[in-house]
Amino acid sequence: MLIVMSHNATTADIDAVVRTVNEMGLTAAPIPGRERTAIGVLGNQGYVDDSKILELTGVQQVIHVSKPYKLVSRDFHPENTIVDVRGVRVGQGCRPVVVAGPCAVESEEQIVKTALFVKQAGADMLRGGAFKPRTGPHTFQGLREEGLKLLAVAGRESGLPIVTEVMSPDSVGLVSEYADLLQVGARNMQNFDLLRELGRIRKPVLLKRGMSATVEEFLAAAEYILAEGNDQVILCERGIRTYETATRNTLDLAIVPLIKELSHLPIMVDPSHATGKRSLVPPMALAALVGGAQGVLVEVHPEPEKALSDGPQSLTFPGFGNLMEEVRRLTGFLGYV
Amino acid sequence: MLIVMSHNATTADIDAVVRTVNEMGLTAAPIPGRERTAIGVLGNQGYVDDSKILELTGVQQVIHVSKPYKLVSRDFHPENTIVDVRGVRVGQGCRPVVVAGPCAVESEEQIVKTALFVKQAGADMLRGGAFKPRTGPHTFQGLREEGLKLLAVAGRESGLPIVTEVMSPDSVGLVSEYADLLQVGARNMQNFDLLRELGRIRKPVLLKRGMSATVEEFLAAAEYILAEGNDQVILCERGIRTYETATRNTLDLAIVPLIKELSHLPIMVDPSHATGKRSLVPPMALAALVGGAQGVLVEVHPEPEKALSDGPQSLTFPGFGNLMEEVRRLTGFLGYV
Amino acid sequence: MLIVMSHNATTADIDAVVRTVNEMGLTAAPIPGRERTAIGVLGNQGYVDDSKILELTGVQQVIHVSKPYKLVSRDFHPENTIVDVRGVRVGQGCRPVVVAGPCAVESEEQIVKTALFVKQAGADMLRGGAFKPRTGPHTFQGLREEGLKLLAVAGRESGLPIVTEVMSPDSVGLVSEYADLLQVGARNMQNFDLLRELGRIRKPVLLKRGMSATVEEFLAAAEYILAEGNDQVILCERGIRTYETATRNTLDLAIVPLIKELSHLPIMVDPSHATGKRSLVPPMALAALVGGAQGVLVEVHPEPEKALSDGPQSLTFPGFGNLMEEVRRLTGFLGYV
Amino acid sequence: MLIVMSHNATTADIDAVVRTVNEMGLTAAPIPGRERTAIGVLGNQGYVDDSKILELTGVQQVIHVSKPYKLVSRDFHPENTIVDVRGVRVGQGCRPVVVAGPCAVESEEQIVKTALFVKQAGADMLRGGAFKPRTGPHTFQGLREEGLKLLAVAGRESGLPIVTEVMSPDSVGLVSEYADLLQVGARNMQNFDLLRELGRIRKPVLLKRGMSATVEEFLAAAEYILAEGNDQVILCERGIRTYETATRNTLDLAIVPLIKELSHLPIMVDPSHATGKRSLVPPMALAALVGGAQGVLVEVHPEPEKALSDGPQSLTFPGFGNLMEEVRRLTGFLGYV
Repeated sequence: MLIVMSHNATTADIDAVVRTVNEMGLTAAPIPGRERTAIGVLGNQGYVDDSKILELTGVQQVIHVSKPYKLVSRDFHPENTIVDVRGVRVGQGCRPVVVAGPCAVESEEQIVKTALFVKQAGADMLRGGAFKPRTGPHTFQGLREEGLKLLAVAGRESGLPIVTEVMSPDSVGLVSEYADLLQVGARNMQNFDLLRELGRIRKPVLLKRGMSATVEEFLAAAEYILAEGNDQVILCERGIRTYETATRNTLDLAIVPLIKELSHLPIMVDPSHATGKRSLVPPMALAALVGGAQGVLVEVHPEPEKALSDGPQSLTFPGFGNLMEEVRRLTGFLGYV
Repeated sequence: MLIVMSHNATTADIDAVVRTVNEMGLTAAPIPGRERTAIGVLGNQGYVDDSKILELTGVQQVIHVSKPYKLVSRDFHPENTIVDVRGVRVGQGCRPVVVAGPCAVESEEQIVKTALFVKQAGADMLRGGAFKPRTGPHTFQGLREEGLKLLAVAGRESGLPIVTEVMSPDSVGLVSEYADLLQVGARNMQNFDLLRELGRIRKPVLLKRGMSATVEEFLAAAEYILAEGNDQVILCERGIRTYETATRNTLDLAIVPLIKELSHLPIMVDPSHATGKRSLVPPMALAALVGGAQGVLVEVHPEPEKALSDGPQSLTFPGFGNLMEEVRRLTGFLGYV
Repeated sequence: MLIVMSHNATTADIDAVVRTVNEMGLTAAPIPGRERTAIGVLGNQGYVDDSKILELTGVQQVIHVSKPYKLVSRDFHPENTIVDVRGVRVGQGCRPVVVAGPCAVESEEQIVKTALFVKQAGADMLRGGAFKPRTGPHTFQGLREEGLKLLAVAGRESGLPIVTEVMSPDSVGLVSEYADLLQVGARNMQNFDLLRELGRIRKPVLLKRGMSATVEEFLAAAEYILAEGNDQVILCERGIRTYETATRNTLDLAIVPLIKELSHLPIMVDPSHATGKRSLVPPMALAALVGGAQGVLVEVHPEPEKALSDGPQSLTFPGFGNLMEEVRRLTGFLGYV
Repeated sequence: MLIVMSHNATTADIDAVVRTVNEMGLTAAPIPGRERTAIGVLGNQGYVDDSKILELTGVQQVIHVSKPYKLVSRDFHPENTIVDVRGVRVGQGCRPVVVAGPCAVESEEQIVKTALFVKQAGADMLRGGAFKPRTGPHTFQGLREEGLKLLAVAGRESGLPIVTEVMSPDSVGLVSEYADLLQVGARNMQNFDLLRELGRIRKPVLLKRGMSATVEEFLAAAEYILAEGNDQVILCERGIRTYETATRNTLDLAIVPLIKELSHLPIMVDPSHATGKRSLVPPMALAALVGGAQGVLVEVHPEPEKALSDGPQSLTFPGFGNLMEEVRRLTGFLGYV
C-alpha cells in the first residue's frame, strides 16, 4: 500500500500517518520526493483497511499495490535515482559509464596491470571477482579475502572505484570494507537474506538479473534492498537463459527501455556474460548504450587464453582500447560530454 | 560436402567435377566466387567417398560438412551478398534500410495513406500483410488477393517496393506478381515445401526467424532456398519465445553480429514483433542498427487503436517521423550517406 | 461466438438461426450434442451484434468467445470425441493404443519386418515417415511416394492401420490414399493452409504440438481442422523446446490432464521425440498412460544403429517387446481389457 | 580427478595415495564401495599431472573428470544411496514415500490438524514452510522460528518426520534443531555457501532443482553438499521455467529416469509446484511414481481457499485422501509392500 501525501502536508502530518500505520501493526516507509512525500506501507498480508488513514490530515490518496514492488517503481517515485559510486555518478542524464576488468582476480600483477590499462583507456570503474560462484565445487572459487586485498591495491594504484561480488550475508561486512559497489550475481538475485543485508549498508549495490528472472521478479528483488533503507541500487541485465545455445545467454536488451519506464533505478548491461563470445561484446556494448543503458560492464584480461574463468568472453587490451574509442565517439554523438 | 577448386581451375575442370559428382548419384551446385569456384555437393546421406573427386584436375580441397548448411555459410562464400529489391540494395556496406507499413492491409485508404507518409518520412520499402497467419481461425485472416491489389496501388502511388508475406507453396506465383520482396513468416520458417518453391523464383525473399529456431536452424532454412538456386535472401531476427512475458518476444540482438560472422547473407531486425510495445520500438530499432543490422522493419498505422491486428506495437505517424529523424542522424554517424 | 440452443429447439429453429447468421455475412457451424445443439459462428472480426439472434425462437444463450478456439473446447462440446482409425478407437474410455514403427521408411524389408514384429508384440498401428522434414536440405528427406507404397505393403501384410506425416496441402490427397491417420508434424502445427486442407478430408488427423506452442495455440491449431468440418483429430504431446539439453526436448506431461479438461479431443504422447534417448522411452511411455494419455507413439527400428534418422531414440525389437509387456500389465491395472 | 583403487588394495595403499594427493596441494576424498575404493581429488584447477599417483601400489586407474561433479556420479559410486529420514528410508528399492503438508505453517491448529490428517491417510513425512522465500518483501514471509516450533508440535503429535526449508547458512543450525530433512528451495539451489554449510551437518537434505537449472548444474549443486562430507541428499524435480504459462512450471519428468542413470542419489518429484493447479497434482504424482520417482511431495491444506500462499495448488483433505488410495494401489502394482 502506498499513501500519497498532498503537496503542502507538514512534517507533523507525515509523522501522524507513520504513527497510525505502526499502530496497525505495519511498517511505514516515508519516501520524500521533490513535489510531495509518499509513504510506503510494508508488512501487510493482503488487503489493508485504509479508512483510518484516509481521514488523517494531509493524506491525498491511498494506492493499493498489486505488483510485488513499490519503492522501486516510477509510479511512486517519478524522479530518476542517481547512484554515486565514490564520485562516479550513474543514472539518467549522466554520461554512461564503463566498468571493466577480469572475471576473477588471479594475481597482483594481473589485476594491477589490468586496472592501470583500463583506467588509461577511459574506464570508470574496475571490476574483478574475489568470491566466485562456480557450478561445481572442484574448480577455482576465487582468491577470496586475498582477492579483495589485491583489488584494493589495484584500486589505489589506478584511482578507480572497485566493483566486486558478494555471495553471502555474513561476508557483506568484509566485502564492503574493500568494494565501492557491491555486486549481487545472477545466481543470488533471489537470495533474500543477502538482499536484506545489503539494504542495511550505506554502499551502492549492483544487482544482476537472475538467469530466468522476469522483469517483475528483478524489480521485486531490488525492492528487498530498498525496503531495508538502501536506495543506491543499479540494475544490470546480463542475458537470460533460453533454448538458444549459439550464445552463452540471450541478451534481453529490450528490457532496458522497459525498466526505465517502470523504475527510477539506473540500469546497466553486461554484454560479456550475455554473449559469452569476445567478438559479440563490442557491438552489443554499443547497442546497449544506444538502447538507453546507463553503463556497460565488460570483461578484460591481459591474456584471455590463460584466464582461470571466462577467457572466451574477455576482451584483450587492444580490443578494449578499440571499444573505448567507439564508446567515446558514440556517447559524444548521444550528447554526453 | 564442398569441393574447393584451385584459383586457376578452368571451366572444363569445373564441368568435369560436376559430371563426376552427378555420376555418383549426387547433385553438384557450383558456387562461383571472386577468387575461386567452390562446388557444393547435395543429396548425400552421411559420408561420401571423395577419392574419385580428389584425383580430378583443379580440385584443391574437399571439405566434409557437419553443419546442416553450406551455401549460406561464409566459409564457402566469403563475399557479402547484396540483395537488390527493385533498386534498393540491402547488405554489408549499403546504407541500412527501413521497411515500414501496417501489420495488415485493411483498406485502400489505409494502405495508400501509410505508403505516402512513410515514403515522405524516408522509408525504403512498404510492408503490409495480405495473407495473415493467425493463431485461431475465427479472427481476421487478411484481405488475401484483394490485399495484394491494394498493395500494388500503394506501391505505384508511393514508388516504394512492396514486402508482403506468402504462406503456402501454391500462392508463391500469385504473391510474386505483386511483391518485390516475399516474406516468410516465423511460423513458416521450416515449411520446407514453401522454402523450396521460393528457391525456384527470381525474386528476393525475406526469411523471418522461427519463434524457437536456433541460429543453426535459421541458416539451414535459408539453405533450402539457396539450394534451389535463389541466393537473394535477407534474414530477419524478430524475437524468440522465452519465459519472459513482459515483452511479446525476446529480441535476440546478439545474433546479428553472430550471423554476420557465419553467413554472407544480409540480416535485418523487426523490433515491432520482437517487443510488442510501441515505446520499445524506437530504442530497439536504433540499437539494431548500431549492432550491425542491415535494416529494420517497423509497423506503422494511421490509427493504431483501430488496427485489426498488432495495434499496440504499431507506431503512429508522428512516432514514425521521429524515429526516421533519429535513424537518419544515426546512419550519418555510422558513416553512411 | 457460440449460440446455444434450448433443449427442445426444433430443426426449423436451428435452420432459422443458421440463415440469420449467414445473412450477417458470417458462417454458422451447427454442433449437435446429446442434450442440445450449439451453433458456432465463424468469420467475425471482433465483436458481433447478437440482438437479431437473441430474438429468434429456440435460442437459449449467446456466448462471446475470447479464446481462439471454440469447436475443440469442452465447454461447447462436453462429450468426449472418439476417433476411429480404421477400426481402432482412440479416446476417453477406450483402451490406450500403441503406435509403433521406424522414424523413416527406408526399405521394404525394414518396414515390413518392423510391421510384423510390432503387430505380433501387440501394437495397434504402424507409424513410418515417407516425407521427412529435416533441418537442412542436404540430408535424407524420405522415400516420398515410394515410401507410401512400402507402408501400404507393410499395412497389408500386418493388418495394422498406417500413420504417416503429410507436409504440404497439395500432398494431402496423395498421402490420404495410403494413410489411415495423417500426421501433422511439430514444425507444421501452424501451417494453416495444411490444417485447412486436412479439415476438408474424411480421414482422421494426428496433430503434433509445435516445438514452442502453448496449449492455447495447440488447441487453436486443431480448431482450424474442425472449423473446416473434420472433427476426427487426435492431439499429440511430443516435448517442447526449453533451455534443457540433457534430453532432446522437454516432455510436458502435465498438459495431458490439462487438455482433457479443456477439450473433448483425445491426446496421445510421443516419448521418443520428447526424450531423444532410448532408455527414457519406456518409463515415460508408462508415465504418460498413468497420466491419462489415450495412447503413445514409439519409434522402433530393427537396427537402430543403422537408422537413417533418430537411431538413438528408437527402441530395438527386444526393447519394444519388453515395453509392450509392461503396457499390457499397466493397462490391465488401470482397468482396460 | 578420480583415482580408482584395485579390488585388493589395502588400507595402507589407500593412505599412501591420500598422502601423495595432499602433498600435491589437493584434497583426497576416499569413497569406499562394496567392490573397491575410489578416491576423489578435489581442489584442482584444470588438468593434474597423474604420473606420481599411477606409480603407487594398488592404483588401478586415474579418471580425469570433465563433468562438474564426481561424488554424486554413479560412475564413481555405483551403489544406490538410501537416505534415512528418522527411520523413513528413501531410495532405490524402498517403497516410494509421500511427503505432505501445507505450503506455509500458519497456525498451530492448521499444522497439527494437517499433520494428523495426512498421517492417518498414509503420508510418510510432514512438510511445512516456516521460512518462506517470496518474490517481493511486502508479502507473508513465514512465521520463522515460531513456525519451526509449531512444526515440532505437529511432528510430535503425528509422529511424522518434519521437512522444512532453510534459506541461509546462518539459520542451518536453528532449522536443524527442528527438522528431520532440511529443504533447499529452487531459488537457493546455487546458494553455494548454504550448500557447503549443509554439507557439514549430519542431517539429510532435500535439494530442489533450480527454476532454470540444467541436470548438470543440479547434480553439481548436490556435489557441493557431498564434497563437505554429507552424502544424505535427496534430489527433487519441481518443474522448470519455460515459455508455457498454462501451468505454473513445466514438470520435467524425463529427468527422473535420467538422473537415476547418472547418479546414485534418490530423486523425488513435487507435482504441486510443478503444475500449480490442484486438478493436475494427482495424475502427475502417479505418473512420477511410474516414471521411477522415489517419492512425491504434495501440498495439502485444510482450507486451500484461505491459504496464505499456494492455495490453488493445494489439495483438500478429501482430495489427498483419494490420492493416497491411488498411491497405495499403484505402489502395490509396482511391487512394493
